[in-house]
Amino acid sequence: MQIVILLYDGFTALDAVGPYEVLSRLPHTTVVFAAEQAGPVAVDTRMLSAVAEASLTDVPHPDIVLVPGGPRKATAPLLKPGPVRDWLLAADRDSSWTTSVCTGSLILAAAGLLKGRRATSHWTALHRLAELGARPSTARVVMDGKYITGAGVSAGIDMALGLAGRIAGRDNAEAIQLMIEYDPQPPYSAGSPQTAPPDLVTRMRLASGRSPRAVAS
Amino acid sequence: MQIVILLYDGFTALDAVGPYEVLSRLPHTTVVFAAEQAGPVAVDTRMLSAVAEASLTDVPHPDIVLVPGGPRKATAPLLKPGPVRDWLLAADRDSSWTTSVCTGSLILAAAGLLKGRRATSHWTALHRLAELGARPSTARVVMDGKYITGAGVSAGIDMALGLAGRIAGRDNAEAIQLMIEYDPQPPYSAGSPQTAPPDLVTRMRLASGRSPRAVAS
Repeated sequence: MQIVILLYDGFTALDAVGPYEVLSRLPHTTVVFAAEQAGPVAVDTRMLSAVAEASLTDVPHPDIVLVPGGPRKATAPLLKPGPVRDWLLAADRDSSWTTSVCTGSLILAAAGLLKGRRATSHWTALHRLAELGARPSTARVVMDGKYITGAGVSAGIDMALGLAGRIAGRDNAEAIQLMIEYDPQPPYSAGSPQTAPPDLVTRMRLASGRSPRAVAS
Repeated sequence: MQIVILLYDGFTALDAVGPYEVLSRLPHTTVVFAAEQAGPVAVDTRMLSAVAEASLTDVPHPDIVLVPGGPRKATAPLLKPGPVRDWLLAADRDSSWTTSVCTGSLILAAAGLLKGRRATSHWTALHRLAELGARPSTARVVMDGKYITGAGVSAGIDMALGLAGRIAGRDNAEAIQLMIEYDPQPPYSAGSPQTAPPDLVTRMRLASGRSPRAVAS
């Protein structure tokens, strides 16, 4: 099974690496990081580059497509027609699963793949999913047919574990969960707009689209 | 504030990228990925390379040191004297915090930094921590003085959020948690040897040290 994770300038690292860490542990599976051109691709903060081992033309028929998200500046070019959309539409034709994390769902939606489908995204971007023809959900992971979308950044881990279970059975998914010791114990309860302090939610909503850094104080 | 994340051949990607995604969002903070030599560094599965932007000699005085883990084959060379240990000991002399994720704690312990200290590691490696002079704990995150160790792979996210709170206050840490939407909802409850099915724990304990892949079936 071949899983292709799309990299593009300014993607958010954990959106891609969270699901990779889960899915790469599936039996008989290769995860390929691919970008329009092979080579290093810088993440949103510019503090890290991941190497795309393949160009998109090298991987025309993945079994699973995964599109990570990124800040508005990074995703904007991919919401327009171009070689990435062309690849995505062609790859989706034969894929078993087409998936996204965070604002990666905007890229799927802009390509027309989520028309009328339930989908999720980063909580600050859900209204944009609606503008692009999807039916937004606040769920952490949404499956509609072969399209699975995860909420913001860290949700890719939960999405990938669920997908691992569907592909390889609960026993394999639990083995992966145990080996990545995914027994989350966040020290705060601010992980969603439903649980975070309301004034923080307001401030971060206003700040979204600007810097990815904390702007809490 | 400068945070240096040590990269080495065969490290586990999420061990490094989880904490990076949290800590890079702190105000006035630069995260530098550094390796003995600058350039691409392959992860344990060989399916991904991350670029070390700096060599260790470029970053002698980090405020925070973070050492990710990896499978036995990857960490073994770093349990011996050598340039990485020399750097680690020198960097630790001035660091505010010296931290690890997963079996990264074995590297700290082998360097003598955890002697007599409480520390944690991947659940399959806790006995090795004891052999290296630390006092192993099954807690997900352990702080002993300026030394913070996280349990396996995904625990780095929890460790980093707690550290973010200590450094920049609860409000900033909660802002980061909200923006990475860290509201974990694992689809299974197998994330620790305490919660996973006992026969799975036994099988994975036997398999540990071999392939990082699921070997559940």
